[in-house]
Amino acid sequence: MQLSDLSLTAAADAIRERQASPVELVDSVLDRVERLEPHLGAYVTVTADRARKSALEAEREAAAGRFRGPLHGIPMGLKDLIDVAGVATTASSRVRAGHRATADSTVAARLEAGGAVLVGKTHTHEFAYGLTTPQTRNAWHPDRVAGGSSGGSAVAVAAGTATFALGTDTGGSVRVPAALNGVVGLKPTYGLVPRHGVTSLSWSLDHVGTLARTVEDTALVLSELAGHDPRDPASLAAPAADHRPGAVTDLRGLRVGVPRNYYFDHVDPDVEAAVRRAIGRLEELGARLVEVEIPMTRYVQATQWGLMVPEATAYHERSLRAVPDLYQADVRILLEAGELMPAGDYLRAQRARTLMRREWERLLEHVDVVAAPTVPATAVPAEQETLTWSDGTVEAVSDAYVRLSAPANITGIPSLSVPVGHDRAGMPIGMQLLGRPFGEATLLRTGHAYERTEPARTPAPAPAPAPATATAAEAAPAGAPPVAPATAA
Amino acid sequence: MQLSDLSLTAAADAIRERQASPVELVDSVLDRVERLEPHLGAYVTVTADRARKSALEAEREAAAGRFRGPLHGIPMGLKDLIDVAGVATTASSRVRAGHRATADSTVAARLEAGGAVLVGKTHTHEFAYGLTTPQTRNAWHPDRVAGGSSGGSAVAVAAGTATFALGTDTGGSVRVPAALNGVVGLKPTYGLVPRHGVTSLSWSLDHVGTLARTVEDTALVLSELAGHDPRDPASLAAPAADHRPGAVTDLRGLRVGVPRNYYFDHVDPDVEAAVRRAIGRLEELGARLVEVEIPMTRYVQATQWGLMVPEATAYHERSLRAVPDLYQADVRILLEAGELMPAGDYLRAQRARTLMRREWERLLEHVDVVAAPTVPATAVPAEQETLTWSDGTVEAVSDAYVRLSAPANITGIPSLSVPVGHDRAGMPIGMQLLGRPFGEATLLRTGHAYERTEPARTPAPAPAPAPATATAAEAAPAGAPPVAPATAA
Repeated sequence: MQLSDLSLTAAADAIRERQASPVELVDSVLDRVERLEPHLGAYVTVTADRARKSALEAEREAAAGRFRGPLHGIPMGLKDLIDVAGVATTASSRVRAGHRATADSTVAARLEAGGAVLVGKTHTHEFAYGLTTPQTRNAWHPDRVAGGSSGGSAVAVAAGTATFALGTDTGGSVRVPAALNGVVGLKPTYGLVPRHGVTSLSWSLDHVGTLARTVEDTALVLSELAGHDPRDPASLAAPAADHRPGAVTDLRGLRVGVPRNYYFDHVDPDVEAAVRRAIGRLEELGARLVEVEIPMTRYVQATQWGLMVPEATAYHERSLRAVPDLYQADVRILLEAGELMPAGDYLRAQRARTLMRREWERLLEHVDVVAAPTVPATAVPAEQETLTWSDGTVEAVSDAYVRLSAPANITGIPSLSVPVGHDRAGMPIGMQLLGRPFGEATLLRTGHAYERTEPARTPAPAPAPAPATATAAEAAPAGAPPVAPATAA
Repeated sequence: MQLSDLSLTAAADAIRERQASPVELVDSVLDRVERLEPHLGAYVTVTADRARKSALEAEREAAAGRFRGPLHGIPMGLKDLIDVAGVATTASSRVRAGHRATADSTVAARLEAGGAVLVGKTHTHEFAYGLTTPQTRNAWHPDRVAGGSSGGSAVAVAAGTATFALGTDTGGSVRVPAALNGVVGLKPTYGLVPRHGVTSLSWSLDHVGTLARTVEDTALVLSELAGHDPRDPASLAAPAADHRPGAVTDLRGLRVGVPRNYYFDHVDPDVEAAVRRAIGRLEELGARLVEVEIPMTRYVQATQWGLMVPEATAYHERSLRAVPDLYQADVRILLEAGELMPAGDYLRAQRARTLMRREWERLLEHVDVVAAPTVPATAVPAEQETLTWSDGTVEAVSDAYVRLSAPANITGIPSLSVPVGHDRAGMPIGMQLLGRPFGEATLLRTGHAYERTEPARTPAPAPAPAPATATAAEAAPAGAPPVAPATAA
């Protein structure tokens, strides 16, 4: 096993115990970037020199017994909406040509203070306004979509070109690519992680979230990110918390809600089977399963779009007038549509959100967690635009990918996506665990218990042909899970 | 002096010491209602039978030594947007014909639990969407506007037909009529007083507030009203507090901001002189005056209207389509205008609010209180539609009345209006004290210190002719302040 394969927790332990050096770890990840990036397209910018310099410094500090924090020397990727001083924040868009951030975002500053080393800025669907990230290939199959909009971050973590990464999630943009690439994705409670210095898509739905290989890794990163920042008007003052789950896998006393509606409608049979198996595992671990009715489901799509479309347009107002042709057509059309929306539609969406949040809070009085598929289908081929369900219904891929994620964005509740197996084509499947506001600890405990008792993930049964320029071993990320099984951590 | 002239504090003390009975107090107020209502038009509905029954019950309890709370037996008026079970909430509108509330609003329930006795429901500008309350006459002059939208509540308190009252304040609707009728009006911090069961005008700007004869009375009522209610989505969990100011009038250590811009522009010379005199009084009491720059003033009007217009239209959407002709023309036109507003304009107003709130928070790091006129002019004759300023500028009366109030609605900071004298025509003048979020205690302490050291208020110099049907004594409310001077409390 290479150092780049280690989970964050394992790598951090190795560094702290001086069994591995930050320089070795960062070099291992940079080597992997060099070999695999041409086939993945996960990064917009690789900050190799900066990373080597930071690693050297971290190495000197470690040699002197000084550790900045729990992420000391750990290589990370940041979605290219997240400002890092001196580096461009391109948002994967021509609109941002020549950009250079003058200051760190709050999250970048906190992670660097915790010791993390920036490998590079990862690709997003342009300005996060889409669910595929066309520049990036799925880590498990070069012809499949990466998912999005945090596609680059998810693929980098899955492929071992970053030990962890940050994304943003406005309608599923962390959890969708996490599920499609077989990694863990967390969208925290709205307001828990500050967004200062992060390019906005839709400020009332935007969250900064994490992509990592294990739930334990996720908890470690979240502990560094959470906490009030007055520069984000939506930032909330939550009590500081160590989110790391303990070693206990006993889930007795936990009430897990299993949706009787919505979350298993129009879902691929392989996805449904894997998620139901995983829910069965939670029951084996002691959880009590409770059937629940998901509220106000027929308002989800209209509410998500009714909030997102005008907020996105408001954010882009000036550049949309100045340089409309620099946007990709799909994004420009959405932005222009927002100019036509009446205030009444936006306000109806706001009111629906208020009611939906209240109904979800009621539901979550009866259960501690709701378990459901993250996305109704696995990663589709890049050119596929629609899904056809067994009853003949045709749904746009984007609509399907956002459908099961949106309720957590609208209501602001936390949602954790964990890998729960593969479909018959070998593509990863994700299960999301939804919880109460600021209930991250419960989600992480549940996900961690699942992960620790899960059999090691099997490689995809039918590896895709290796890219011509890569050796068989190097091709692994495109056909088999390049990440260490959770139990290795 | 009649019992109806007593301040709330004085009346409550008299009841507790068994020097006055709830029945006597309520009868005194109801007698006054009977004699003066024909000339005032403050009430939509007088609940006399219910009030007598409640008073009798309160009297029996008091005789047995049981007191429900600090408002035991105190007669109150509630603006007719505030639900009381079994009584119509007409919103002073034909649209609400046949209405009957099935449950108490949170504030009505809390006040009744505190012992208050409902005298009746007071007139509002239709659905609170205006600043004059045309059905109601100013308590000091029958030909002048009452101000609005809580005109009925302010006039009832000024005229002694209620010992205190509640109003709502979306752009000044508590403070404007308080200033124009010479009573104390408080718009608390956004989220401090729950709005469940109160008809909305514009939910992101709406506040329930108080009208009372003294600052001490105001504090007593606020202590009963404040506190979280999950049924109002904007309700905040503030620590429970007794808001009553102490007897100390020493203001040493208090920093009072005196605006160098905005609040004294286009202000009537009599109003400016009275407010500056009152600010001088604060300095004499030990406060330090600090000149301050009011931020983002050129965005105030566009932000207030940009938020209010579409939110009001959204609330009235259905009845505006079903029964447009039942609205008064001024309100219908505003509601219809809201249908044409694009979402972008609303979002720009939201963003301006976010920035404005931040700038005000910064300003309030440097001072504890900002002191300013409540309204730039006193009550105008009912038929007057514009004001002409000394530089020739012409301003609509409504725009002028809302101009100095709106910043506290947009930002959510608390604002207290206290009477500070009269203009040369004898009409009352108000000064507002603005403070930090949840800084009500500081505002009340400042206002109370001012009020306790103020010479007894002089009657208006030129009393209006007494209405033909009233005796000279009864006519007092239309020409001279019918309320006990603060020092009598």
